Amino acid sequence: MSIFDKYNKRAKKINSLLCVGLDSDFEKLPKKFKSFKHPQFEFNKTMIKETHEYAAAFKVNSAFYEARGDRGIKELRMTIEHLNRNYPDIFTILDAKRADIGNTNQGYAAFSFDWLDFDAITLNPYLGKEALLPFLERVDKGCIILCRTSNQGAREFQDLKIKNKPLWQIVAERVSKNWNKNKNCMLVVGATYPKEMKKIRKTVGDMTLLIPGIGAQGGDLKNAIKFGTNSIGLGLMIHSSRGIIFSSNPKKEARKLYDEIRKYRTVL
Amino acid sequence: MSIFDKYNKRAKKINSLLCVGLDSDFEKLPKKFKSFKHPQFEFNKTMIKETHEYAAAFKVNSAFYEARGDRGIKELRMTIEHLNRNYPDIFTILDAKRADIGNTNQGYAAFSFDWLDFDAITLNPYLGKEALLPFLERVDKGCIILCRTSNQGAREFQDLKIKNKPLWQIVAERVSKNWNKNKNCMLVVGATYPKEMKKIRKTVGDMTLLIPGIGAQGGDLKNAIKFGTNSIGLGLMIHSSRGIIFSSNPKKEARKLYDEIRKYRTVL
Repeated sequence: MSIFDKYNKRAKKINSLLCVGLDSDFEKLPKKFKSFKHPQFEFNKTMIKETHEYAAAFKVNSAFYEARGDRGIKELRMTIEHLNRNYPDIFTILDAKRADIGNTNQGYAAFSFDWLDFDAITLNPYLGKEALLPFLERVDKGCIILCRTSNQGAREFQDLKIKNKPLWQIVAERVSKNWNKNKNCMLVVGATYPKEMKKIRKTVGDMTLLIPGIGAQGGDLKNAIKFGTNSIGLGLMIHSSRGIIFSSNPKKEARKLYDEIRKYRTVL
Repeated sequence: MSIFDKYNKRAKKINSLLCVGLDSDFEKLPKKFKSFKHPQFEFNKTMIKETHEYAAAFKVNSAFYEARGDRGIKELRMTIEHLNRNYPDIFTILDAKRADIGNTNQGYAAFSFDWLDFDAITLNPYLGKEALLPFLERVDKGCIILCRTSNQGAREFQDLKIKNKPLWQIVAERVSKNWNKNKNCMLVVGATYPKEMKKIRKTVGDMTLLIPGIGAQGGDLKNAIKFGTNSIGLGLMIHSSRGIIFSSNPKKEARKLYDEIRKYRTVL
């Protein structure tokens, strides 16, 4: 039993690989929400209601809540409590990209997995496996390691070649071969790099990949699915946030992406 | 005028390169503090009072506050407000090791520099310069980039060789040559690797280095100072936390490290 069975079960049940991002930047909230006592939480509640039927997972980026200090952090907690209470079969991710030395990571693990009760967290590999053990040893929780990120500047270090292999490939190899003893690891691979996706899928077997970069960042959905799907037709969480939650019709946009994902999966 | 002039001025004034870490893990607080309404803040206030005369900088690691959710975050804010109000000439660092894509980093910059008002933040280089621009463009604030971290597992990726150069050296080169247009960059270099320190000092000119790993992690103070000091006899922030704040006599331990640093600086 792996934490990702929860995701696979949900993905099969609703035939979806969609991960809806609740990157609920206060500045971008519609006016009516800004006047509420808990603006980000109320906005999230509405977005969850609108999109949950298409969502195999929800991902919440911590930065947009930390920007408002303790008030934002409180609404982040209200959001995960709301999800766990009302939609316990939907997979939840805290996108926090944390990494510190081991002793200190215990604090971040307590934040994301205990004080908040997310199923998984995103992590940065730069400090190595030994540093991330407080996360990796949590067999009940998922560790989603940055491999090839979706931003333009990712190439600066991630594409550096070590004996003809780019750094992102070495990260993929190490995570799949050495870090994943508890079957609780995943990788982040931007949809903006379909070629890299192909190599990564070859490297990591059936490991699930979190795919940002669809929508606002211009990623290539068709090829992400073509090259990223694993041997059981799953293995992907396809993430979109701004394109859904800040659209004029979030339900329609979620449905549209959900349909597109199904279409490309069928083609295979 | 660079943000680090604040540090240099303080360092010269009290003849110290000591950075005291307020890694005030709630679990490790003395019993009497645990019963207070604001345990971490009250503990910090005491530690600041005991050690400030030797401190050129204070560094606060966000993880130990996030572990307690919104309550911890509130006490983190009370701590920086207390420092800025009472000790405005002491340099302050939020050790948060953040890194996300550009759009999202705006949230973290708002958290660390605006909602909290730290002089500098620690950052992870894995996503590249382009991602970190929301920090790098803040000319009024400092960006302290992880280069060679002090943990055992750092070597897993940081020592990988790209055309005979380890990754940490490429990070040092890029930060000093391409990222530092606003003269607001520093690097983190663990004291557990004095050989690396020598190369890094050669690479980065007079850039200031944050040196963790002294004390609990067994770093080599003498060689860190020998190889790390810059051309004006400064260029280092020597960090110690647990060895001071969780000792039976924090003032004495801060004084002891302060004296040791002075001794090795004199030898040069």
